[in-house]
This record gives sequence, C-alpha cells and structure tokens, in this order.
Amino acid sequence: MELIERGSVTSPAGFSAGVATCGLKKSGRADLMLLHSERDCTAAGMFTRNQVVGATVTLNRETLAANSDRMRAIATNSGIANVCTGATGLQNARHMQSLAATAMRCRIEQVLVLSTGIIGVQLPMDKIRAGLTAAAADQHPDGGMAAARAIMTTDTRPKHLAAQIQLPTGSVTIGAIVKGSGMIHPKMATMLAILTTDALIPARTLRALLIPAVNHSFNCISIDGDTSTSDAVLLLANGATGISCARGEAREAFAAALTHLATELAHLVVRDGEGVTKFVSIRVSGARTKADAHRVANTIATSPLVKTAFAGSDPNWGRIIAASGRAGVRFDLQRAALWIGASDHETLQLVARGTPCDYKESDAAQIFAGSDFSVHLDLGCGDAETTVWTGDLTHEYVSINADYRT
Amino acid sequence: MELIERGSVTSPAGFSAGVATCGLKKSGRADLMLLHSERDCTAAGMFTRNQVVGATVTLNRETLAANSDRMRAIATNSGIANVCTGATGLQNARHMQSLAATAMRCRIEQVLVLSTGIIGVQLPMDKIRAGLTAAAADQHPDGGMAAARAIMTTDTRPKHLAAQIQLPTGSVTIGAIVKGSGMIHPKMATMLAILTTDALIPARTLRALLIPAVNHSFNCISIDGDTSTSDAVLLLANGATGISCARGEAREAFAAALTHLATELAHLVVRDGEGVTKFVSIRVSGARTKADAHRVANTIATSPLVKTAFAGSDPNWGRIIAASGRAGVRFDLQRAALWIGASDHETLQLVARGTPCDYKESDAAQIFAGSDFSVHLDLGCGDAETTVWTGDLTHEYVSINADYRT
Repeated sequence: MELIERGSVTSPAGFSAGVATCGLKKSGRADLMLLHSERDCTAAGMFTRNQVVGATVTLNRETLAANSDRMRAIATNSGIANVCTGATGLQNARHMQSLAATAMRCRIEQVLVLSTGIIGVQLPMDKIRAGLTAAAADQHPDGGMAAARAIMTTDTRPKHLAAQIQLPTGSVTIGAIVKGSGMIHPKMATMLAILTTDALIPARTLRALLIPAVNHSFNCISIDGDTSTSDAVLLLANGATGISCARGEAREAFAAALTHLATELAHLVVRDGEGVTKFVSIRVSGARTKADAHRVANTIATSPLVKTAFAGSDPNWGRIIAASGRAGVRFDLQRAALWIGASDHETLQLVARGTPCDYKESDAAQIFAGSDFSVHLDLGCGDAETTVWTGDLTHEYVSINADYRT
Repeated sequence: MELIERGSVTSPAGFSAGVATCGLKKSGRADLMLLHSERDCTAAGMFTRNQVVGATVTLNRETLAANSDRMRAIATNSGIANVCTGATGLQNARHMQSLAATAMRCRIEQVLVLSTGIIGVQLPMDKIRAGLTAAAADQHPDGGMAAARAIMTTDTRPKHLAAQIQLPTGSVTIGAIVKGSGMIHPKMATMLAILTTDALIPARTLRALLIPAVNHSFNCISIDGDTSTSDAVLLLANGATGISCARGEAREAFAAALTHLATELAHLVVRDGEGVTKFVSIRVSGARTKADAHRVANTIATSPLVKTAFAGSDPNWGRIIAASGRAGVRFDLQRAALWIGASDHETLQLVARGTPCDYKESDAAQIFAGSDFSVHLDLGCGDAETTVWTGDLTHEYVSINADYRT
C-alpha cells in the first residue's frame, strides 16, 4: 500500500467532485459539494448510534436499504445539520436528494445526502438548489481537495487521504475525505467520512469490510465525549479498474488498506480536534474483556480532569487512576501498572502494583510536554486490550464552543 | 426550620473544632482540622463508589462497622489525599487515627479520618503529628468556620451551614461543613461533607436518614463528571439536647431538614465549582423510570458541548437534545419538549414535538446570560422525573486543572 500525495475521494478512477458557495456559512466559504461517479457504485454506510438523528441519516438508511449497488452521487452541505427539523426537515432532505439527482442526471435513489452544522434550522432550499446546480457545473476529476474544504465546519484544515494497493492483477485506489473536530466520540460523533474506491466489490462484501474498519478507527477516537446526531461513514466502490477485491488475498489486502486509511483519517480528526494541542494514545491492557478495556480507556479519554492535565503537560497519573476507577469495571488496584511514553518510543513506568514508582518527575513532565505521547494502563486481571486516541482539553476548546453561534 | 447565620459543624451543642497549619499545602494555609464532641456520638457515613478508594475510605468503613455509636472525633487533612499509597498509606491513615485519639484523649475506634488533595503521595507523619497536637490545643466551641477553611483544596470559599429545627419537645440543630469544587459528580466526587447534630438518634436510624438525604443532594450534582476516590459524607449525632428524633413527627422534621441542608450544601459546592460562573438546574421529566430521567439529566449535565454553551450564554438547545440522544435511553424526539427559565421564574419554550418553537432568540439569550437558570426537558414517554444541578465549563476550569500541580 502506498499513500498518494494530495490524495482524496477523486483519486480512484471514475470519480469527480464539484463545490459551490450557496450562503449557508457565515464565513462565506464553500458550503456545498457534489461527489459523482461516472459508473454505478456499490455502497455501504455506517451511521451515528445517537437516538436523535438528522433527517439525512433517516434518508440514507432508507436509500441504502433500497439501492446499495447503483449509487452515483453524494451531495453534502455544511453549515446546517438538518436535525430537529421534524417532517419539514425530512421533506427538505428528500428535496435535496431529488435536486442533486436532476443536476447529475441520475435517479433519486442513486444519491446519498449529508448535512452538517447547526441543529434546529431548516435548509434554505432555494440556496441549496442554486448550490447544487453550481456544484454540478463545477465537476472536476481532481475536485476532491476542494470537496474536503466544502464539508468543513469548525475544522481548521481539510482532511483527505488516498492510497494505492498493488495486487497481482493490477492496482486499485482508495480515497477519502473527512470532516469533524468537535462532538467526536466513539459511535462517530459529528463526523462525516466519505470513502471511494475503483475496486470491484459487491455491496454485501463492501459492508462487511466497512464495519471492522470503522470499529477499529472512527469508533476509537474521542474529543469531548459528545456523540453527534449526524455521523456518517459512506463508502462507494465503482469498479472502474475492473479489479475484484471480493475474495482471497485481494480482499485481505483491501481490508488492511481500508482499516489503515480509516485509522489515519481518525487520527487526522483527533489532531484537528477543537482546541487540541496534543495527540494521546491510550492503551488499556490486562482487562478481562475487550469491552472492559474499551470502557476504561474511554473513561480516561473523556475525563475532563485527565484532559486538562494533558493540556497542562502535567503527568498527574492520579487522575488517570481515579478515572479508571469510576469506569464501572472491577479491577484490583494492587495489580495495576501505568507507563507513559513519547509517541512510540520507550516508556517510563509511573505506577507499579497501584503505587507510584521511583521515577524522576522531570522525565515524566518531558514526555507530557511533547505533542504526541502515549499512556498505557495495565489492569493486571486478564488478557484483553484496546487502544483509543484522544486530545487535550484546552482554553481554545472552550473558546470555540462557548462562541460557536454568537 | 431556621437557618443559623454563620452556622457550621460547631453550631449544635457539645461540638468543638480546632485547626492547624502543618505544611501540607504549598499555599501555607491551614491544612488540618480536628472536630470533637464532648459526648459519644452515633455515626453514619457514605463513601465514593469509585473502585479505587483512598486509605481513609477503607479505614472509615472499618471503623464505622466496628463502632457506630461511640464516636468522638473526626480528623481531616487537606493537601494530600492518601490515595494510591498502598500498604504504607493505610498504615499512615491508622497512625493518624491513633495520633488523633491520643490528642483528644479517646480510643482509636472513636476517631474517623479524612484526607483530601493530591493522589499518590504519602502523608508526612511528623507534620501530621505536630498538626494534630496543635489542633487539639486549638479546640473552640465556635471553631467550625475555621474548620471549613482548613478542609479546602481548590475551593475558593469555605462552605458551612446550620439550621435549627423547632420540635414540640424543644429545638435541635444540624450543622455542616463541606469542601469540593472539582471532580464533583454523582456518587460523590472529591467532596467531603461533615454533618453534626445535637439530636438523639440511634446509629441505625441515622444511617437510614442519611442515605435518602445524600441521594437527593450530593448525588445529584456534577461539575466535571469525574468521581473522586475519597468522597465521604459523615454524620455525627451526640444527643446533647436529649431530644430524640428517632420516630414520628420529630423524625420527619429532622429528615426534611437534613435533606434540605444537604441540598443547600450541594448547591454551594456547585456554585463554588472550579471555574463555575453559572448555576444550572437540569430537570428531566416524562421519562419511563427515575433511572432513565437521571441518566438523561446526567448526560446533559456532563456534556462539554452543553457546558461550554452555558459558559458562552448561548441557548444552543441543539446540543442539549443531542446529549440526551446519546444517554442510552430510548425516547421519541417527536414527543420531546424543552423549556428554559431564569431561576424559578416563568419559562420560555424552545422546542415542542422535537422541533424549534417560534421564540425570540434574544429572550433565550437573556435567560442564559443570567447566573442562575434552569433547563427542563420533557421526554414525553412516562411520568418519572428528576433534577440535577451543574455549572458551566469555562476557561477558568481549564486553567485551574491544567496547572493544579505545577
């Protein structure tokens, strides 16, 4: 697998994208994008597990259930989320789907629709209509980078990636764009990820490949513990290369590349998290079950006290231990151990058998002063483990979220 | 029930308190206090549900199990929590109990011990010994206010209350001091509350009275979702008035006063929460069960996005709806309604049947601009309800917690 420089959703063959500025964002930046495939695509999607979902989530679930192998386009607006908008909201989402189908000359059920932004506001359909027409006219085979910008909300930079997979039968490409920097939490908070590939993969297989990739990536990151109402990961495969990745080694190579790419995208989201200045890997091992490990890692990753200690470069391991103690998982503190380390380098043990080790405070502080570091907690009561990724909780996070609408 | 001005743990008859500065706090402020009753007390205690507990929690559970009706003293230090300190930590807690017993001329099992502050550091027993001797020499029948100061950590002000209850047989008094301003969360995070009374109440009844009072007060507040390892609420009854509150109307009056006082104390803790500038009541009604209502209210109360919106005086109800949607409680958004209001005044409806009402944004903003306001979410699917209290998430919170040890 080889990363493609400036790669995006339009790196795989047969995809194009166009953008438009239709006036949904106060900033006056591009707020609409239309991704298109010249061939029918198989499609798979995973959505938020929040009880309250946006109109587009309802619509996409319906569209994918009816048609998962002749998809042609994804229309996305940023600025307005179309959530808590009742029957009118769902009607508007359908209208947007239909307008996009007209603009791209395909059938309604061949279009998926995504909306991200403020909750409780109806889409101004006149603006959406004009935007879709403009985005259809703007289609470029290298439009993916602009598309990555057009789906941004509080993101500070566009996030896009692509990779080429060499197979005995030739090479296929996976491309992606992603947005989301707040409300990020396992179960895919305010995050939209769009993945494309020119490999040939049946819809059912595509879905089977997407689920574990998302579970190992987007479902292992947390910025603030808030799960959004509109999260979606969509994957389109247009088969433009004619190369099948449905079985055997090709499938394995595709699966590995997809998970790798999704993990890289998830890390990009954390690094661009609202106010985030540190990227922290939290590994919990020695748990009885994977679910236990995940529960503890997540509790640490969302603890405001832990995250402010990260922000202050303060190796205050007591807060990490205290957070793990309230995760609802039984363990014996006398068997617990804790290490920290710079990125993937050697680690410094802070706690053994539940009590502090004889380490130099300055060594620990130096690790936490870095912009990338890891925390490893071993519970000493089993063999299961997991890793989640998070950032710090900073003044900037408060500023961004206290002033979002004002 | 009548509040006593400048009331505290020494307002009930027969109690005294003394403080000392033994050098556990960098600030050089008083860090040790010794509360004493001239008569044997019945005693009840409730402690953190964190899996990881401080040595004093272990010790107090043991002491209360062995002796709940001849208690004489509570020794408390601030600055060091004596948590994650292994066998030495428990030994030190026992040593502190024994030193306090010697200083106050009572038996070891007549002393309860509390420690609050930094995790993972051993108590300097020489300093504790000197401090206990000084605090024993400092005993005053009006020492409760100084005691409230001596148990503070990041608190910005001492928190103390007392109330007199008029009964047909005479009047009894309940007094209290409390500390805690971060790591505050249901299940009693980093919070120490000491309550005293001169009523005559058997130990078993005392415990039966304490549990609902704590559940309706301290277990309904949240600053940052972090549950501490050392939380404790202790209640001593020395019977100095000779007036029994064990049965009938006297018991009812006592129970009501105790719950009222505990709720007032809990509110004081929220108002003095780390960086808190707003006091917010979150009422969730129309839930299927009380547990469901509590889960939704808690998720709202701990959501960083909701709490930063409070900080920004931004009536961003979308975040409140989104938070309730991820609480793990099933409800139908189309039946949900949301109101906000200034303190206990009339309320403004923002959401009806899951969609925004036609209200003036400036009216909503004015309510959120206040320092006291309420949020009321009705889920429309049952009769159960609850109220929890929380604050906002501010720059100041980040500053306090990023720089706590440095």
